[in-house]
This record gives sequence, C-alpha cells and structure tokens, in this order.
Amino acid sequence: MSTPTTTPALSAPAANAPFEQTTIERRPLRDNDIRIDIRFAGICHSDIHQVREEWGKSTFPMVPGHEIAGVVAEVGPAVTRHQVGDQVGVGCMVDSCGECEMCKNGEEQFCEKGAVFTYGDEGYDGEITLGGYAQSIVVSERFACRIPDGLPLDQAAPLLCAGITTYAPLKRWGAGPGKKVAVVGMGGLGHMGVKLAAAMGAEVTVLSRTLDKADDAATYGAAHQLSTKDPETFERLAGSFDLILNTVSADLPMGDYLGLLKPYGALVNVGLPTGDYAFAPGAVVGRSKVLAGSMIGGIPDTQEMLDFCAEHGIGATVETIDASQVDEAYDKVVAGDVRYRYVIDVATIQPGA
Amino acid sequence: MSTPTTTPALSAPAANAPFEQTTIERRPLRDNDIRIDIRFAGICHSDIHQVREEWGKSTFPMVPGHEIAGVVAEVGPAVTRHQVGDQVGVGCMVDSCGECEMCKNGEEQFCEKGAVFTYGDEGYDGEITLGGYAQSIVVSERFACRIPDGLPLDQAAPLLCAGITTYAPLKRWGAGPGKKVAVVGMGGLGHMGVKLAAAMGAEVTVLSRTLDKADDAATYGAAHQLSTKDPETFERLAGSFDLILNTVSADLPMGDYLGLLKPYGALVNVGLPTGDYAFAPGAVVGRSKVLAGSMIGGIPDTQEMLDFCAEHGIGATVETIDASQVDEAYDKVVAGDVRYRYVIDVATIQPGA
Repeated sequence: MSTPTTTPALSAPAANAPFEQTTIERRPLRDNDIRIDIRFAGICHSDIHQVREEWGKSTFPMVPGHEIAGVVAEVGPAVTRHQVGDQVGVGCMVDSCGECEMCKNGEEQFCEKGAVFTYGDEGYDGEITLGGYAQSIVVSERFACRIPDGLPLDQAAPLLCAGITTYAPLKRWGAGPGKKVAVVGMGGLGHMGVKLAAAMGAEVTVLSRTLDKADDAATYGAAHQLSTKDPETFERLAGSFDLILNTVSADLPMGDYLGLLKPYGALVNVGLPTGDYAFAPGAVVGRSKVLAGSMIGGIPDTQEMLDFCAEHGIGATVETIDASQVDEAYDKVVAGDVRYRYVIDVATIQPGA
Repeated sequence: MSTPTTTPALSAPAANAPFEQTTIERRPLRDNDIRIDIRFAGICHSDIHQVREEWGKSTFPMVPGHEIAGVVAEVGPAVTRHQVGDQVGVGCMVDSCGECEMCKNGEEQFCEKGAVFTYGDEGYDGEITLGGYAQSIVVSERFACRIPDGLPLDQAAPLLCAGITTYAPLKRWGAGPGKKVAVVGMGGLGHMGVKLAAAMGAEVTVLSRTLDKADDAATYGAAHQLSTKDPETFERLAGSFDLILNTVSADLPMGDYLGLLKPYGALVNVGLPTGDYAFAPGAVVGRSKVLAGSMIGGIPDTQEMLDFCAEHGIGATVETIDASQVDEAYDKVVAGDVRYRYVIDVATIQPGA
C-alpha cells in the first residue's frame, strides 16, 4: 500500500495574492496511478483568469498548472501504459467517468459525468485538485500522455494545453495541403497554431494587430502576415480562407472575419471574450459558412498531437523562469510581453522561500 | 436556327402591385439549351420578399418562380442530358461560368463569376431573367435536373428550392441513422426538412411555436414535437441534438438553440432574419459547437436530392392554385396559412385575364 507524498509547490493563497512557495500533499498511488516528477509547467492565460477570479469564483489555496511535463517516478501495480523513466505530460484533465459515449470516443473533456480538471476542481473523491506548479503530481495513467524522447520537456509542457487547443480544431476543420489557413493572434496559442498548420501543409497567414512578430511567424512557417488594424486587409483578403483559427480572447468583429472565408469556410474560435458575438445572418447563410468554437481536445488527440510535434520537430517557443518570477510573469502575459510561453522550472520551487 | 418563342406568364409590374397575366418572350434555343413546358411553379417565400422589395431594390416587371417542374418540349442540337418528353425541374439558378473551382466542384451557386439566378437577375447576355410563373422556359441543359418518373410534378416543383435548401445541410452535417436532428419551423422548408431527415434515418424532433401541425409532423416521420413557447422545452432538451436545422426567418435566440446541441453539434440556419445573431462565445466554444448557414445547393446535389426523394417516395405537400389566386396566396404564405407549399398550375395563366 502506497502512502501519501509531499512535494514543493507554488500556491496562490487567495485571489490576486502573490504566490507562496509551500509544500502540498499528493495522494497515495491507486492501482492505475502514476507519480510524475514534474520538470516544467507552462503558464496558460487561463491560470491567470482563475487566480484572479476573472471567470467567477475560484477555490483557494490554488496550485495552478495544466501544462505539465515530467518523468514517471513511480507506477501503481496495475499500470500498463507507462514505465518509470518515461517522459510524460498532463494537460487540462485528470479524470473522467470512462464509461459514457464521450469518454469511449476519446472526448473526455465532454464526459457526461463531468471531467475533473487538473486544478481547482473537485475530484470524484471529493478532494480539490492541485495542478502542475509543483515538483510532482499523482494522476491516473489514462490522463498522462507519452512525450516522445525527441521533444525537450520545456518545449513540450505548453503543448498539453496550447498545443492541443490549436491542433484539435486545425485537424477537425481540415487544415492541410492546398488549404489556406489564417491564424488570428500571435501569442501562446497563435504561435502554436502557425507551427501546427504549417506542418500540416497549409498555406498560413497570420492576422494580428501589429507586425512586430512577422520574423517569428515566417520562421514558424507562415507565408504571409497582415495587420488587422489596416482596413485594407479585410478588403484584400475577402473570400480568401478555407479556415480561420481565432486565438484572440478580445472581442473581435465576427462579421468582418467571416467575410474573409471562402464558401463553406470555417471561423473557429478558441478564446472566450467577455462580449457577445454579433453578426448579420447573411455572413454565414450567404455562402454556407461556419462559425465554430473549440475547447481543448481528448486524450487520444492529445497523444496524436504530441507524436505529430515530435515527428515534425515542433515544440512551443518558451522562456524558462524560476518560481520567484511567476507573479511578474503573470503581469507580462497580460501585457502580451512574452515570446511565446513562460514555463516554470519547478526545480526552483523552495518551500518557505 | 431557332427563333424566339412567346409564352403566357404571371408578371409583377411593380413592387407590391397585383400580378398581371401577360405574355413574355423566351430566347431562341442555343446549342445546349432546352425548352421546357412548365406544368407547376412553387411559391417560395423569397418570391414574396423580392416582389415586395423586402430584400432591397428589385427589377420590374418581374416574373418570379424558381421551383419549376415540367416536361422537355424541344432540345438544342448539342444537348445530351435531356430528351423531349423527359420530366425536368429548374431551381434557383440558370447559368454560371462553368470553369471556376466552385463550378467544377458542382457548387454553381458560389460561382466566382457569379451564378445567374432564375429571375430578376442579369444574365451573361445582359438580359434580365424571367422565372417560372409561366408556361415555358428556355435554359441551358446544365441547369435542368431530371425528375424521376415516380415523382408527380406538382409535388416535385418545390423540391427545386425548398428540397435542396434542406437536403444540402442535412447531408453535409451528417443527418442519418443514430443521429438526433431537430427541425425548427414547420413551414414550406421545415416540412421538407422533417421528411428528408426522417428518410435519411435520423430521429427527428420538430420545434415550433404551436403544436397544431403535430399530426402532419408525425406522418412525415417526426418522432417528437415540442413547442418553443414552453420554456421547459429548452431545459428538457438541453444537450440533446447532433444537428438542428433552423428553417425560420424570424429572429430567434441563437444561444438558446445552441444550448440544445450535444458537444460538436451544429445549428444550421437556412433563413435570413433581419436582426443580427447575438450569443455568448461560450455557447459555441464551451462544447466545441457550430453555428452555420446554408444557401441552396449545387446542381449535382440537386439531382441527388431528386433521386433520393423518388427512391423514398417523398414529395412536397402542396396546395395547387390557379393563376388568379397568386396574390391571395402571397398573403396567406406571409400569414403562415399554407400546408405546406402553394404551387401554381401554370396552365391556368390566361394572357389578358
């Protein structure tokens, strides 16, 4: 019988309070659990929304982190998928019922019982989940994905959220050879969208307010970059794209972006702006267009995405920070001052620091 | 060399003026043209919008009609698709460039040069097109579809618009066995949506304000009918449908209908309300849902739909009227007082009546 373990972690004691470096407990291994020595945890904008209670009430103390990369340290007696020493990642979910239609289809994020999210959520055991800003985590083997050896763990961590969030809609909506794909926004999600769509073989255009990241966009495989502040952009590109992946969380004029699609084209949104979408019905009806949303992806797609990234030599572009820099990093993410994802080197967490 | 022909027709001399029974000219047959003796022409709500200039400026005199069923009376020397005596139909389009990507893909409605619509549009020859409220029409053979012999022409006429308008999105969005499909509205479009979705094997639910057409809905294959005026409907059916086909042209609360979809479900609109769509981004992003539009369909899909209808014994449910009743019928359509499509027996058109 396994016993609980403790691990250093970064914990937010209350909404908007600075992080504390502390120690948390992880549950004893269940038969199908693995314990992961975490190496890197990415900072996702949704961590900030939740620590700052911008999406409604949060539960504190909170240990955020759902972009987790590490190495398997211990396995429960019934574990078959992973071995000690394997590189693995954990994303936004750590449990689901496993029995409903959605779970059976590998769409655990839409589990009918309700998926258990990696932090700040109530697990089926009644405990509040604590995420990846820590040196270890215990999860069911089902929710750990293999990170192929060729992928460095710091670059792999953000793939577990930013990667799957952009990969799933690009795949579903047919990004590939012969397709013209626009990626709106060049942040943590957008830069992954560009890399993935280009690797899928699409002709990629970046649409962003400024062109200051044009060199990076070209490096990541974008063929074109245009400013959305220039009204001519919307005239020049009218009817151009098979697919637009909108990674921006600010309120954008959906009708203008729908106008950039070819007949049957799709505008897929992965951000959650605060205002309503509003547009004339003709913007979709006139040329049989689509406005869709997309939320992360299931475990099979996440594994497929990691394998795809390894095959194509794609990781997130990261800036590695120490545990003491997380509060400052949050402000920089909000200001858009990051290229393109902060990852925390969790070895720098010192309880009591 | 063929010569022009004349034919009795119903013509609207000006916006909102009563129809006149008159005589119009049809062009001499070109090499690939056929002349069709029209038997029945359906009254589509879009005829009314255009005669009443509710969609912007129209060109008068106008001969509406894009739900045309008849028999081939004469063929040009290069015609290969149709023979004299064949049952054929003509829908919303009578020409397209035939060379662009859309035309090559059989999506002539999105022709890059611009499809020529069946009435009130400028043809590539500069002439204003005159539609199907007439005893004959001359069209390129490409835009005439075969009506299988088993389909009565009066029931077939509305298929050329109402049929393809509902068939194309049902097919594209996967209506079929094991799928739960809601059809919103039980009018000219909606009743076809019910018949087609049921014939495709889906479990069909009708959502309409009143339940006075419930018996018809059941006859057409609907398993359930619920009132959208009952707020409990939206609670009971939350997360229920794979696909919702919205045939209503009034402003509906899109967010409420999106809430009825399963994850990955699609709400497809074929009407054109005057107000904007407005809904919270989470209504699509939260469960990866789709809001789409759909406009008619291409010629290959139209032929496929007619063959499907013949195979499944499906026609529109029609009330046949004389030429003298068209003005009155327009008012009844606007009032929703029709089960479910008026078709004009064009043999009753008497020039000078």
